[in-house]
Amino acid sequence: MKLVTFLTKGKAKVGVVEDNQVIDLHESYKAHLKHKGETRIEEKANAFVPNNMNELLEGGEESLKLAKEAVFFALEAKDQAAAQLVYKKADVKIGAPVPKPNKIVCVGHNYRDHIKEMGRDLPEVPVLFAKFSNAVIGPEDDIPHPSITEKLDYEAEFAFVVGKKAKDVSEEEALDYVAGYTIVNDVSARDLQMRTLQWLQGKSMDGSAPMGPWLVTKDEIADPDALDISLKVNGVEKQRSNTEQLVFNVNRMLSFTSSIMTLEPGDVILTGTPGGVGVARDPQEFLKDGDVVTIEVGEVGVLENTVRKV
Amino acid sequence: MKLVTFLTKGKAKVGVVEDNQVIDLHESYKAHLKHKGETRIEEKANAFVPNNMNELLEGGEESLKLAKEAVFFALEAKDQAAAQLVYKKADVKIGAPVPKPNKIVCVGHNYRDHIKEMGRDLPEVPVLFAKFSNAVIGPEDDIPHPSITEKLDYEAEFAFVVGKKAKDVSEEEALDYVAGYTIVNDVSARDLQMRTLQWLQGKSMDGSAPMGPWLVTKDEIADPDALDISLKVNGVEKQRSNTEQLVFNVNRMLSFTSSIMTLEPGDVILTGTPGGVGVARDPQEFLKDGDVVTIEVGEVGVLENTVRKV
Repeated sequence: MKLVTFLTKGKAKVGVVEDNQVIDLHESYKAHLKHKGETRIEEKANAFVPNNMNELLEGGEESLKLAKEAVFFALEAKDQAAAQLVYKKADVKIGAPVPKPNKIVCVGHNYRDHIKEMGRDLPEVPVLFAKFSNAVIGPEDDIPHPSITEKLDYEAEFAFVVGKKAKDVSEEEALDYVAGYTIVNDVSARDLQMRTLQWLQGKSMDGSAPMGPWLVTKDEIADPDALDISLKVNGVEKQRSNTEQLVFNVNRMLSFTSSIMTLEPGDVILTGTPGGVGVARDPQEFLKDGDVVTIEVGEVGVLENTVRKV
Repeated sequence: MKLVTFLTKGKAKVGVVEDNQVIDLHESYKAHLKHKGETRIEEKANAFVPNNMNELLEGGEESLKLAKEAVFFALEAKDQAAAQLVYKKADVKIGAPVPKPNKIVCVGHNYRDHIKEMGRDLPEVPVLFAKFSNAVIGPEDDIPHPSITEKLDYEAEFAFVVGKKAKDVSEEEALDYVAGYTIVNDVSARDLQMRTLQWLQGKSMDGSAPMGPWLVTKDEIADPDALDISLKVNGVEKQRSNTEQLVFNVNRMLSFTSSIMTLEPGDVILTGTPGGVGVARDPQEFLKDGDVVTIEVGEVGVLENTVRKV
């Protein structure tokens, strides 16, 4: 499934994208229960297919299975149901799949090809840093360019979303704790990032984590270690690699992070960015008002946002 | 008021500490409404004095005023009310005042006396870094000492809690956006903190942010810039200073941070630690199983936790 949050008539809903349609999961599950003649429908829907992404993910595989059944039901039954279950994608606003992660953990220097090209040794331990949830925006939002930075930069990142509480999980078992995958642009204000020892202030501006276009559940990704990743600015390619180049791949990142902190459903972990970011180019290139940044990760999708002065 | 969360019979509640008593705010407000002959009591209590610290803080000054009235009512009416409103402090477990902040923002190198003693220049910009909410534990919890670190250290910190959504707030207006103050021990695994460029992995272990003993609302602190702060390990003083030594005081920290990211009610901002931490001592001293760490901040209170191997 391609899980999203979406907005219709001012209400935020959890949905699934199928072609050009968006299915309202919570309403579809309720309609499905009603169709089966069940009672206490609202309570059961709140328990198993709640209208909140973090809560849905807390339900684990069971909730995702019920959600999938609800999608099948909705696509069959859409004309008969009392509430609207299916929307045209163009008629709603798609938001970030996980609008409010408890943690956003990022890693620096993680693409082997890029590290070697810089003449550095491969790291033995990942460099972890944080973004906060105020940074999250969706695939249809603009990237704010505030006046506090003159060096706004892009970073294409393949990300995974935690699906189950995880502490001290082995690399072998790591994927059991992953709900699925998404794309995040780790937008960075290089001047703020570099003016002190710690990067946080350049990494956590409002709107500096565009996320989407959806959360693809892991059953739809054959091999997370073999995905092309690329980024274009205004159609010109700036970054390109493949997740096979990750020093710390999804398994290692989940295992390592869980050795330090308990991960929770809805936590988002970014796996780092390939070479080619603006600050490392010669001459340097930074984002400006109107620039369109397009990130593509094979099998996951395309995340495209426009930069806007605020 | 001294706001806390507390546990009784397995349920988490928001309360106020008065001497050796803890008043259940949500139940007291409901009893107060009932006493006044009002209707839709549960709904009004959920709206104005909810049983969740972040939500209570979202209610702003109005909710805190109603909470205070509820405390007065409870202390008068405790024998007649249907539900238990007042507990002996010894009969409940006191938890962290803000168990799940959306953001925990920390600052390095902020005490003037310590910076000068190290022969460094005063910073022009604060060094910001993050902890996540998995780190938060309460004043009656033990500090976990996991086997992944051999260099567990203490950091006494005066902290403030955001009470109102804040973006681009001036230093002059900053205190309008503060709900109150607390103490946090910024427990740090120095080996994990220093093995990569970024400190996050040494700062965000489970249980590495003991917080308490309560959130003192700002009306009870005459001057946040004139508070003694000290830390003892097993009764021996290791750190001592006064918040007058802060380069970036509460006003400057709130204003600066809000220039980068939108702050929300319940966000916790730590103001840094004085000299005397274990890693900087000669010889170095680290925390071990059974050590008792006691932090005192004048007018705020005392936070004491014991270190336990896990």
